Amino acid sequence: MKISILGVAATKFGELWSVSPRVLAKEAMNNALKQSGLKAGDIDALFVGNMLSEILGNQANLGSLLVEELGVQIPAFRIEGACASGGLALHNAINSIKSGQYKTVLVLGIEKMTDHSQDEITNALMAAGSDEERMAGATFPGVYALMAQAYMKQYKVSEEELASVSVKNHYHGTLNPKAQFQFSISVADVMKSAKIADPLKLLDCSPISDGAAAVVITGENIIKKVRKPIQIVASEVGTDTLSLCDRKSFTSLLAVIDASTKAYKKAGLRPSDIDVAEIHDCFSISEAIATEDLGFSKKGEGAKDIAKGKRTLFKGDIICNPSGGLKACGHPVGATGIKQIVEITEQLRGVAGKRQVENARIGLTHNVGGSGAVAAIHILRI
Amino acid sequence: MKISILGVAATKFGELWSVSPRVLAKEAMNNALKQSGLKAGDIDALFVGNMLSEILGNQANLGSLLVEELGVQIPAFRIEGACASGGLALHNAINSIKSGQYKTVLVLGIEKMTDHSQDEITNALMAAGSDEERMAGATFPGVYALMAQAYMKQYKVSEEELASVSVKNHYHGTLNPKAQFQFSISVADVMKSAKIADPLKLLDCSPISDGAAAVVITGENIIKKVRKPIQIVASEVGTDTLSLCDRKSFTSLLAVIDASTKAYKKAGLRPSDIDVAEIHDCFSISEAIATEDLGFSKKGEGAKDIAKGKRTLFKGDIICNPSGGLKACGHPVGATGIKQIVEITEQLRGVAGKRQVENARIGLTHNVGGSGAVAAIHILRI
Repeated sequence: MKISILGVAATKFGELWSVSPRVLAKEAMNNALKQSGLKAGDIDALFVGNMLSEILGNQANLGSLLVEELGVQIPAFRIEGACASGGLALHNAINSIKSGQYKTVLVLGIEKMTDHSQDEITNALMAAGSDEERMAGATFPGVYALMAQAYMKQYKVSEEELASVSVKNHYHGTLNPKAQFQFSISVADVMKSAKIADPLKLLDCSPISDGAAAVVITGENIIKKVRKPIQIVASEVGTDTLSLCDRKSFTSLLAVIDASTKAYKKAGLRPSDIDVAEIHDCFSISEAIATEDLGFSKKGEGAKDIAKGKRTLFKGDIICNPSGGLKACGHPVGATGIKQIVEITEQLRGVAGKRQVENARIGLTHNVGGSGAVAAIHILRI
Repeated sequence: MKISILGVAATKFGELWSVSPRVLAKEAMNNALKQSGLKAGDIDALFVGNMLSEILGNQANLGSLLVEELGVQIPAFRIEGACASGGLALHNAINSIKSGQYKTVLVLGIEKMTDHSQDEITNALMAAGSDEERMAGATFPGVYALMAQAYMKQYKVSEEELASVSVKNHYHGTLNPKAQFQFSISVADVMKSAKIADPLKLLDCSPISDGAAAVVITGENIIKKVRKPIQIVASEVGTDTLSLCDRKSFTSLLAVIDASTKAYKKAGLRPSDIDVAEIHDCFSISEAIATEDLGFSKKGEGAKDIAKGKRTLFKGDIICNPSGGLKACGHPVGATGIKQIVEITEQLRGVAGKRQVENARIGLTHNVGGSGAVAAIHILRI
């Protein structure tokens, strides 16, 4: 059975002090429905990807809470897998359609993070960390900094080369009206920004964000009112140990390699077939490693290729993070996996405006939870 | 495609101070695997039903955390829908098999609740409540007490009749070596126990518990080493508003009616075909209403039928909660929906020991989240 995307929508990402999670969810869901040419009554189930509503909002049962905003009573589920919650929600939604249980479903990713103190957020995010990491006092920048240290030493990569990831994504952000940061930065700006966890500096790190994104998918062959249906041709998930210290490698995420290998096989595609990808760049090091794990760059050359412009809009070959990525578009954690689908769908439809990747026909999304304990890979094509 | 249960296991339920969530999960998963005649390497994915790990344990990404205990790296998901998390996890697991994505999967329900103060637990559980209910200072006993008030008034039901639910379930608990409470109580005991929220008394309420339960299911036709395969012939989910004040009825749960109507239709069965059921009796009133919503009793006669012994082991027609239910077996919230499957499987296999329902061939599980915002119904048969 083919899975088609009927409609997508994302809210503006950023520090959205004036709106509640309900308002964010409603905006994304209603706009995705509107674009699909469907009404809430046409939807069979709602899948919600969210990580932190329980810790930050003391709100469980988010599926039932948010389905109320649709004004219909349909089965609703919350799927949680840290920052990969959005991708995992989509994976389960796709399976539910392929199973024959539901025909057309709505998948929402949502996170409201900025109404809390820095300490609360740091502690909440470490809920995805391992016991060892937490007992050692590590934060996520600290954990990814260890990967960066190992990567830079092993492959002789400079801090400047790593910084080029953020520079690229901020440039892309200037072309995305929904991005949290719509200004460019230079390598020098990254280098002189405050050290967070050596070698990662403030501008190597994605921000704390609010936002929601939604997608309507169906297995039905009759697709109405959609000019260019986009198909999801692979949806695969991989896992690895929660703790970095239990891993075989610090410079590769096995969950990503596992999921993407399965996804390429399922789609009958090779890495070089991908025109555009949305990458989980929670830190600059993440995107460098991801482009290698996904087969876009040779091992050790991911950061160098980005520094050379190979992933940059209008000059690269496989364009990564045209949305601005987590770094510039923002990272409301549960929303990220679905926002990636929204971006790739707009790219493949050719409606991505100033950040349109030319002749984009095949796209990939790469959504990671924790420091790589889980990864969801989706491949889309027109 | 037929979904078969290969193996089931539950830990003891109760105040398990000496074990961690990992240990509980491992025991349930390994015993379910052992009974299935399978190894961890035969499992394609893990679905974890859990409500409170984030709030009480500051632990997200529980799928990835607990899959480590299996010693294999397979896709893992946490599904959350308050106290229906177990049932919703099973629903998504079944869909994932029917979709062709996975062949054989493990579904775990788990909750560790007793390491926390009464205030922490009360607050954590209200995470499944609505804004209105929380702002009014309501607790879950309070919300269910409102239902009990309306029900008793509308159908002229006495507190003693309601108390018979707990009396029955405690009697059943005496026959279940894994139950948290293995002693009988009388109607007089219930009546003289402390008032919690009028008309509900302490012995009308299910306890705070720790526990885990696991089930291995497959869509494969070749079932090895299993003497009597049990099939899941229906898996349906319904939702309703989160808040009681938005509902059309206080004396019926529309989510249960919706899900069970669909489930009976899917299974080609009527309520009277059910031999044994595990009911979500978080409070005595819940079971009374449930037996009506499920079609076992006429409207207004659920509590009266229970008081007459119609749901009691060795004398009733449709036996409800032979395990002791949430009241006596215990209610580790995320584990409950899967424990119900374990109990019905053992009943249909005829291995339920002293609490065996005679000639049990068709069973049902009824798992509810919040005050009825979500319900998962499963029908099993041999």
